[in-house]
Amino acid sequence: MKRVYNFSAGPSTLPVSVLQKAAKEMLDFNGCGMSVMEMSHRSSMFLDIYNKAEQDLRDLLNIPANYKVLFLQGGGTLQFTMVPLNLFRNSFKADYINSGEWSKKAIKEAQKLGDIKVVASSEEDNFSHLPLIEHSEFRADADYVYYVSNNTIYGTQFKSVIDVKDKVLVCDMSSDILSKPIDVSRYGIIFAGAQKNMGIAGLTVVIIRDDLLGFAPKNISSMLDYKLLVDNESMLNTPPCYSIYIAGLVFQWLKDLGGLSVMQKLNEQKAELLYKAIDQSTLFKTTVSGNDRSLMNVCFKATTPELDKAFITYCETKDLINVKGYRSVGGMRASLYNGMSLEGVQTLVKAIQDFEASQK
Amino acid sequence: MKRVYNFSAGPSTLPVSVLQKAAKEMLDFNGCGMSVMEMSHRSSMFLDIYNKAEQDLRDLLNIPANYKVLFLQGGGTLQFTMVPLNLFRNSFKADYINSGEWSKKAIKEAQKLGDIKVVASSEEDNFSHLPLIEHSEFRADADYVYYVSNNTIYGTQFKSVIDVKDKVLVCDMSSDILSKPIDVSRYGIIFAGAQKNMGIAGLTVVIIRDDLLGFAPKNISSMLDYKLLVDNESMLNTPPCYSIYIAGLVFQWLKDLGGLSVMQKLNEQKAELLYKAIDQSTLFKTTVSGNDRSLMNVCFKATTPELDKAFITYCETKDLINVKGYRSVGGMRASLYNGMSLEGVQTLVKAIQDFEASQK
Repeated sequence: MKRVYNFSAGPSTLPVSVLQKAAKEMLDFNGCGMSVMEMSHRSSMFLDIYNKAEQDLRDLLNIPANYKVLFLQGGGTLQFTMVPLNLFRNSFKADYINSGEWSKKAIKEAQKLGDIKVVASSEEDNFSHLPLIEHSEFRADADYVYYVSNNTIYGTQFKSVIDVKDKVLVCDMSSDILSKPIDVSRYGIIFAGAQKNMGIAGLTVVIIRDDLLGFAPKNISSMLDYKLLVDNESMLNTPPCYSIYIAGLVFQWLKDLGGLSVMQKLNEQKAELLYKAIDQSTLFKTTVSGNDRSLMNVCFKATTPELDKAFITYCETKDLINVKGYRSVGGMRASLYNGMSLEGVQTLVKAIQDFEASQK
Repeated sequence: MKRVYNFSAGPSTLPVSVLQKAAKEMLDFNGCGMSVMEMSHRSSMFLDIYNKAEQDLRDLLNIPANYKVLFLQGGGTLQFTMVPLNLFRNSFKADYINSGEWSKKAIKEAQKLGDIKVVASSEEDNFSHLPLIEHSEFRADADYVYYVSNNTIYGTQFKSVIDVKDKVLVCDMSSDILSKPIDVSRYGIIFAGAQKNMGIAGLTVVIIRDDLLGFAPKNISSMLDYKLLVDNESMLNTPPCYSIYIAGLVFQWLKDLGGLSVMQKLNEQKAELLYKAIDQSTLFKTTVSGNDRSLMNVCFKATTPELDKAFITYCETKDLINVKGYRSVGGMRASLYNGMSLEGVQTLVKAIQDFEASQK
């Protein structure tokens, strides 16, 4: 069996032990004679899987009791609409921080429904750094403030939660959730697609403070109303059962590892190793500097596009896959999500050094 | 490894060979060194899986070139809203046939958006038969006609397509798609959750005639607009990749079996065997009679609720699982989707006969 080092930005590499367990249980989960894929979502067997996944997520993130957890479908993009649909309740205004492609898309969807102000943006610099946030830009009557914690494409990351005082803060945490401990109580809503740090595409986790439930208009799809989804414990219809099961395996793997403080240390170690190698190189340089650098997505370039291409090809010969950067940035991008091993990063670092030596 | 006969109404039993292939490829798909779960949805490897799944579905259902195929999230329930959002284009009226819980739910969601007329219903008889359709009830200016081809809970099934002349016909085929050949050209939209006959929960297949695209209002989520989804080949955002892969394995299994005509014969054989055993019994009787009987979900009852309970327990001792009926019907329900083997049905028939003999 072959395994490569997969630096894809998402869907992305998973812990081998998670895949092994899924493979082992594929035809017969725990001696029940069926696959998790085949279980009725109302069966006690599946409800055990569901409840354990939720509890493990609550344990990992230390989620307060007044927050509800939803396991939904539709990805972050459906949340771009569900957030304003459910949170517009007074002014129908919201303040957005524009730090990359995903905030841009979120703004576009929200603008269909209300008055959106971009209170900070780094678009003029092709999002190569985080925008400067001036708190005087926030509107007193905005129903919520929205930001993306980690920008997958541009390799920037907010290292701490944005201070919005008593305002409702919404965060798209798709690409750094579970990479470190966070204080959930600072947020009104956290949402994240599972396919980077939590599991596979087709599952979106939403964590919502319970006083924010019940404001959705009555004429929308029941599937878009957080309160109805909470009331039905994510089972207004059949949930994405198998994706929830895989997320549960990832949560268990994280607990076994020692939780999010341990994961954070490992993620810091991986990113530091790679950034240091790039900083020491004369052939490569990162596209982001200083504290804005993402620990999840490391973007870097060689001195010419031809060398970028040659390096990507060289990486493939070393089983270092998907290091090509996004088209709007170019160069390389190595995604170091939880599932990427230290060994994978060490191998990439060696490739950087060896490639550079070969060019001299 | 233990395997049971799983008669669940959905999620439901899958062909063993599909599960075996998925298990085998879990850590290393086709020698690429990664799981399908870990592949970028934009990678050529995943696009090959996606395109093959679509082509195999087109082959199986003989889908005409002017129909688009979408692989979406959100289940049938999100379609209950997407259908009216996208098809209301002239009168904002639609005619619905009410034949069970799922048509009731679809009606409720559609009523939020337009003028819905129930043109036929068997609700007054607890949906124990199909409603009588009087074509004079259809409104000339309705934007579409909607029905559910198979009613999972009540065990009824339309054996042929409803004739609506040149009107746009929408069909929720969640529980009998791919169980037999159909004439796609008779429909405007066919949709189906995958978790009964096509794969696992978290994937919804939509087949739509291309002249019906482009009528959605501009202020809705991009994720609810069929035209945008078609323009982006279901990849407006990350699709439910692994669920598409599993559906692809099921499509391949069906092709290897000989296609939908062969599947239909097998499904007819399975249902006939079970209905015959129940009809010959003095202890059990079906809840649906004649041509309304579903080949997918066989609902039946013993002479008393106590005997129902005893029979369900007896079945469990024979590894015949999930034969309990839905609460609004009671008794038993055996779902005989494509994945249920003839051997499974034969074992259930024997249980019916042995249990009856033991009661004498």
